[in-house]
Amino acid sequence: MTLIKAWAAHGPKEKLVPYEFDPGRLNAGEIEVKVEYCGLCHSDLSVLNNDWGNSEYPLVPGHEVIGRIVALGSEAKGLQVGQLVGVGWFSGSCRHCKQCVSGEDHLCSEAASTIIGHAGGFADRVRTQWNWAIPIPEGLDPRDTGPLMCAGTTVFSPFLIHDIKPGDRIGVVGIGGLGHLGIKFAKAWGCEVTAFTSRMSKYDEAKKLGADHVVSSTDSSAIGTLAGIFDMLLVTVNVALDWAELINALAPKGTLHIVGAVDEPIPVAAFQLIESQRTIAGSPTGSPATIARMLDFAARYKISPQVEHFPMSRVNEAFAYLESGKARYRIVLDADFS
Amino acid sequence: MTLIKAWAAHGPKEKLVPYEFDPGRLNAGEIEVKVEYCGLCHSDLSVLNNDWGNSEYPLVPGHEVIGRIVALGSEAKGLQVGQLVGVGWFSGSCRHCKQCVSGEDHLCSEAASTIIGHAGGFADRVRTQWNWAIPIPEGLDPRDTGPLMCAGTTVFSPFLIHDIKPGDRIGVVGIGGLGHLGIKFAKAWGCEVTAFTSRMSKYDEAKKLGADHVVSSTDSSAIGTLAGIFDMLLVTVNVALDWAELINALAPKGTLHIVGAVDEPIPVAAFQLIESQRTIAGSPTGSPATIARMLDFAARYKISPQVEHFPMSRVNEAFAYLESGKARYRIVLDADFS
Repeated sequence: MTLIKAWAAHGPKEKLVPYEFDPGRLNAGEIEVKVEYCGLCHSDLSVLNNDWGNSEYPLVPGHEVIGRIVALGSEAKGLQVGQLVGVGWFSGSCRHCKQCVSGEDHLCSEAASTIIGHAGGFADRVRTQWNWAIPIPEGLDPRDTGPLMCAGTTVFSPFLIHDIKPGDRIGVVGIGGLGHLGIKFAKAWGCEVTAFTSRMSKYDEAKKLGADHVVSSTDSSAIGTLAGIFDMLLVTVNVALDWAELINALAPKGTLHIVGAVDEPIPVAAFQLIESQRTIAGSPTGSPATIARMLDFAARYKISPQVEHFPMSRVNEAFAYLESGKARYRIVLDADFS
Repeated sequence: MTLIKAWAAHGPKEKLVPYEFDPGRLNAGEIEVKVEYCGLCHSDLSVLNNDWGNSEYPLVPGHEVIGRIVALGSEAKGLQVGQLVGVGWFSGSCRHCKQCVSGEDHLCSEAASTIIGHAGGFADRVRTQWNWAIPIPEGLDPRDTGPLMCAGTTVFSPFLIHDIKPGDRIGVVGIGGLGHLGIKFAKAWGCEVTAFTSRMSKYDEAKKLGADHVVSSTDSSAIGTLAGIFDMLLVTVNVALDWAELINALAPKGTLHIVGAVDEPIPVAAFQLIESQRTIAGSPTGSPATIARMLDFAARYKISPQVEHFPMSRVNEAFAYLESGKARYRIVLDADFS
């Protein structure tokens, strides 16, 4: 058995250091992927820091993997050695619960994160349950596709969940790693897109990404002029906002959909939901079927994340850059193990 | 023109007194209904007290009307003099906005309440835009049908909104005017029904109404044992509850649907929505089509509210009884104008 070479942290908030481990025999339901590129996502930082209290060390982060299959377990289906695949936030699910048999494996109560109790993609090879390895369609550049696996799926999934249609009015709140992809998907979906950002400096960028309108996310009176407009507001930030004004900006039957890990509880006034039949919702990443559909859609409409690359050997530098908030908009590490 | 005889309050929180007024010419789009019965709803009390700040006096409450058509405007369609109809919370809508032309008149921004700036059903006659007069199907007892027009529609509509299916697990929170009907509808819909109540004394009643299980709505640890169970929790109360535990009791893709006028903002933790793709929603009454469908469903499954009757001339006594919280479960006033 060849050891896997990886970058691992040995405790919360520690630097990543070279780490080799024996992955053991490949299980029948697993496949092994040789990592070519792996996105660095904000949740890698959260897990590195044990922000959610469930991290396990040594920790190998990385859950936006693009690479080629090098080994197939005997029960892996529909995949071939040499095939280009992506692996995202989850790399395991029970396959027999109500959610799994309904095709909603991402809602399985035993769904296993790629980076919690499992070695992630900051490594030369990564393993995954076969059904969580999603073939990458023609037309996507492998170098930039990693962030679609987590960030892309996260902002794409709400369009399916809420049955969003072309012509609907969509607001994307926050223009960062998630939000910039949200704007691109909303535009390609045929929607009228309003970007909400706290930074004036991002107004032009938002328009270039495809936004029809740009509004300050911290200007309650500006948001107040948009009462009853939006079919969906996709919230990608993790800070408190003027929730009452944002909810008021929803059209009848509109949805405030949250994918950002907002810490403080959101105070929801019942009457705001009742009077216009509105909804507050949230979702995690997506099912394997949703990821595949998102990749097909991205390939068809030439949607790719805006990416900055680091060699994987400079992973600590990349983490520091992520923390600085300067990344525009996603970071991808290029595997460079010798 | 014959004056309309009514019971009206001349200011917030005042007693109702006999009141006669000239309703003027019947508009082309209106009909006039001779009131036989009219439910007394908690929102009549809220409007009487000007709790929502938009009441107009003299105020004639009453928005759960059952009666027979006595006059038809020239544009009224599909109705006949002598026909038994019901009138609920709304009695007007613009008929040309996106919501109205989509059949969602109850979400029209100009939808007009039957008791705000309009004389309601505590009267010998009441007027309504023709489309808000809903024919009462055979098989419903007119004496007890009034509360279906508002309370019934309010708890029925969420089953359509969320596409609830037989076999789904539904919790009804609060067993009162709304909740007791929610239990009956959920049972007839084919769902597994859990009633949540703060009063031990209502356990047996809840089972008689059709609940399969009864749980204390104030016992967080009891609710905690139900994690991940419910496809919908229908909240009919207007008090603060352990929202975090209730949301945690939702199944993946489950909805906490609020129809009670909860005063305090509900603190919603984003991660609780995100991790299991849950939703918080609300709705007001329903469209004319929903009211008609609800009445058909109620007739088919013999669903009627549990009602206590007062002669309309004892309306002030009925309001006091409503405020006492002793009503089981709805009050209906029988018109007794001389």
